[in-house]
Amino acid sequence: MAGTPPFIDEPTDTREAIMVATYRALSTHGYADLTIQRIGDEFGKSKSLLYHHYDGKDDLLLDFLDFMLERFEAALPIDDHEDSMAHLKAVLDHGILGSDPAVNGDFMGAMIELRAQAANDPDYRDHFTRSDRFFQERLVDVLRSGIREGVFRKVDPNRSAAFLHTMIVGAMTQRTTVDGFDGDPLRAELQQYLRVVLSADRSLE
Amino acid sequence: MAGTPPFIDEPTDTREAIMVATYRALSTHGYADLTIQRIGDEFGKSKSLLYHHYDGKDDLLLDFLDFMLERFEAALPIDDHEDSMAHLKAVLDHGILGSDPAVNGDFMGAMIELRAQAANDPDYRDHFTRSDRFFQERLVDVLRSGIREGVFRKVDPNRSAAFLHTMIVGAMTQRTTVDGFDGDPLRAELQQYLRVVLSADRSLE
Repeated sequence: MAGTPPFIDEPTDTREAIMVATYRALSTHGYADLTIQRIGDEFGKSKSLLYHHYDGKDDLLLDFLDFMLERFEAALPIDDHEDSMAHLKAVLDHGILGSDPAVNGDFMGAMIELRAQAANDPDYRDHFTRSDRFFQERLVDVLRSGIREGVFRKVDPNRSAAFLHTMIVGAMTQRTTVDGFDGDPLRAELQQYLRVVLSADRSLE
Repeated sequence: MAGTPPFIDEPTDTREAIMVATYRALSTHGYADLTIQRIGDEFGKSKSLLYHHYDGKDDLLLDFLDFMLERFEAALPIDDHEDSMAHLKAVLDHGILGSDPAVNGDFMGAMIELRAQAANDPDYRDHFTRSDRFFQERLVDVLRSGIREGVFRKVDPNRSAAFLHTMIVGAMTQRTTVDGFDGDPLRAELQQYLRVVLSADRSLE
């Protein structure tokens, strides 16, 4: 059961309905076996309507990736954490343990397939360059806030964010491509990094 | 110019000749556009000979992945580093900066495409499960040696190896799928982790 993508409960226009159909078809078939026909089957309308809006499968998928990123951006500013350390831990748990129940594993598998298209396709590469930059900048924001609050040491936020972001990308890649991936040792070592390298609280060392 | 894969100068039998042809075709065309015909073109012999040995493209590519891993395993025990810290830094530089001139960038791009197949194909998943385990265990070996030498603290080598290995997978994924990936900030922060979390030398903190 592929369900609906995060941030859409009920589609309110044609584009949103196409995006939900794409999310479902991608979760069910993966990238390699995805066709406009299969997205059309989920959409419940003729595939000619899809061809009216998109040149083909990749054109549609690139719009889908942009749509997901826009939605993610719009949903972001909900910051109800105790402090920046708690906020950072929540972001890392989410990335490393894949703990968001709204995102199914099959969809994450399809996302690594889409990312792999970037190895040869400049349009996919452009998307993942922008989305990686976006997520890394959000980490910089959390680190800057924490430094202001005195929760983090005066580290270079760009350097720490690059490090943490690469860790999240690595965990997502492994989680979707190996059997029995265990995020717990990784998470424990990351907590150690947070305590010893980032935290301003010297008593935690 | 795709060149020859690491660990093969001159193929000495048919399998090695097929492996060199596969490496070149994969570096030139990537996974999605690869065909048995294109491997046959690099091989310089009829594609029917390839079909004699393999059921198809994926069967050949899975044998190629095993072949590369076997060669990597056989080439490994060259340890001429000053101590385990120097050894670990060399491994990490290699993984994060992609500093091995014998491995071209196009080939690394094809490797992320092959890894993405593991999201839906159990045979690819089995390979990457084994190869990730192999590389992670080599990191455990280096960490254990360093603990024995007194160069590293008495950390949990499995936990630290999982952390470092995920960082390498993340860096390889980013390097092949985004524009302008800069490994330097990542490497600087990793040195910080080595100094403050792993090194037994307290004067480095």
